[in-house]
Amino acid sequence: MIKDKSFLIVGLGLLGGSMAMGLKKWNHRIYAIDIDKNAIDYALEKGIIDEGSTEIDADLIGKADVIISGLYPALIVDWIAENQKYFKSGALITDVTGVKGAIVDKIQNILRPDCEFIGVHPMAGKEVSGVQHADPAIFLPANLIITPTDKNTQQAIDFIYEMGKELRFNNICQLSVEEHDKMIGYLSQLTHVIAVSLMNANDSKELVQYTGDSFRDLTRIAKINEHLWTELFMMNKANLVEHIENFVNEINDFKDALQREDTEKMKQKFITSTQRRKYFDK
Amino acid sequence: MIKDKSFLIVGLGLLGGSMAMGLKKWNHRIYAIDIDKNAIDYALEKGIIDEGSTEIDADLIGKADVIISGLYPALIVDWIAENQKYFKSGALITDVTGVKGAIVDKIQNILRPDCEFIGVHPMAGKEVSGVQHADPAIFLPANLIITPTDKNTQQAIDFIYEMGKELRFNNICQLSVEEHDKMIGYLSQLTHVIAVSLMNANDSKELVQYTGDSFRDLTRIAKINEHLWTELFMMNKANLVEHIENFVNEINDFKDALQREDTEKMKQKFITSTQRRKYFDK
Repeated sequence: MIKDKSFLIVGLGLLGGSMAMGLKKWNHRIYAIDIDKNAIDYALEKGIIDEGSTEIDADLIGKADVIISGLYPALIVDWIAENQKYFKSGALITDVTGVKGAIVDKIQNILRPDCEFIGVHPMAGKEVSGVQHADPAIFLPANLIITPTDKNTQQAIDFIYEMGKELRFNNICQLSVEEHDKMIGYLSQLTHVIAVSLMNANDSKELVQYTGDSFRDLTRIAKINEHLWTELFMMNKANLVEHIENFVNEINDFKDALQREDTEKMKQKFITSTQRRKYFDK
Repeated sequence: MIKDKSFLIVGLGLLGGSMAMGLKKWNHRIYAIDIDKNAIDYALEKGIIDEGSTEIDADLIGKADVIISGLYPALIVDWIAENQKYFKSGALITDVTGVKGAIVDKIQNILRPDCEFIGVHPMAGKEVSGVQHADPAIFLPANLIITPTDKNTQQAIDFIYEMGKELRFNNICQLSVEEHDKMIGYLSQLTHVIAVSLMNANDSKELVQYTGDSFRDLTRIAKINEHLWTELFMMNKANLVEHIENFVNEINDFKDALQREDTEKMKQKFITSTQRRKYFDK
């Protein structure tokens, strides 16, 4: 159990707000900085945070034992570079970013030697954003992935495990930065590229009345925040391009079998996909 | 309302069995022919059908006002050619096949002039097969698509509408054979090709523990009956190849934008997909 800590959430959106609410239940002190006055006012009014500011507040930053960045991926490195002069000595810094290779090394290379940064990816979310939709229940079915490097201490890793337990994540595990980005490129980013491309391949409004569950399931995630996902894709470009190419090769291989009327090959592909999918049944 | 009809289901699987159960509630007489003795015995025992046979039974066929083929697509034309000599004069013949172009014309060209064939596609199903899993509730959220040609009478079209209402389909509508096959190639067949190819592009067993809803939603239909779907794809080859090519062009266009770091183009694609997907919200 983590006892009596002060957490600062920087960027109080859906994820940061949900973490604030989950940690508040354990009687930690929760501070937040967000440029949006509505977000801070709402969180103060609802008791989600103890103190908040819409500006850089050196005192607030300096009081935090743990700083959680809920900022957009492209902003994190600069925010830490500019504000680490206010960090408490010994502070642990972490984040919620969906791609790790583009930020973990950079932050660990610039960070003050008396502080520690450890990469964390809570694989949780909603189709809506903002602290107004925050809800710690989003962590109940979710994975918390920790991506430590050789610059991290066992103490920091253990702390994140304990924090993940307090937030009631379903599963807490470790991956290297490289493994994480390869995995997330396939399971999450490629699936979003497919959903978006299926939606965009055909102006199919007139097909709505015939649409069943298959098409709805495959395109649900085609509703997407264009700013966040463009940043995430750009930061994982090499992995994602490779995953797209492998997928396109496989679908073209299927198309060739269909065109050549190679029914045995088609059946074999259906058998393989059926067998593999069974591992993913809940 | 349809009154006091005799229905013969040929091929008593999940769909045929579900239709038998749904029609039985309206006090029609239900007969069935299936080569599987277990299917016939089960249906007789449960009161799903009134009479059944595992062989061609001229009397049973001759008693039917309506014959519904639940056979595999490749078998329907031959079954009708061989057995139409037993049909009652004036009998209405229909089916449940997911592709229409490859069978409707053929059947209408060979059918006795005193009988009528009308193509019907109940867009309903389950991940399991067999009359043992039959359940008329599968029709409640589903579409019933009728694909009449200029050889069909208004009387036959009206009859299928009434039958669809008795089976409590959510929506009953008409499409031409060509419109139907194009639509189904996109909404159903392409989505299955994508799910199968995503599953087959990577031997991803070790990724199970990190898998969230996105990947599960996109691959649910990768569990697939290899015999049925190979037949359906072969019968709609031209449409499906065209849909695959359009989709691959779109995903390659996305990949090119990512490789060129054209973030404006990526954002525009996300905005388009988000707008289009909203029409498909239930």
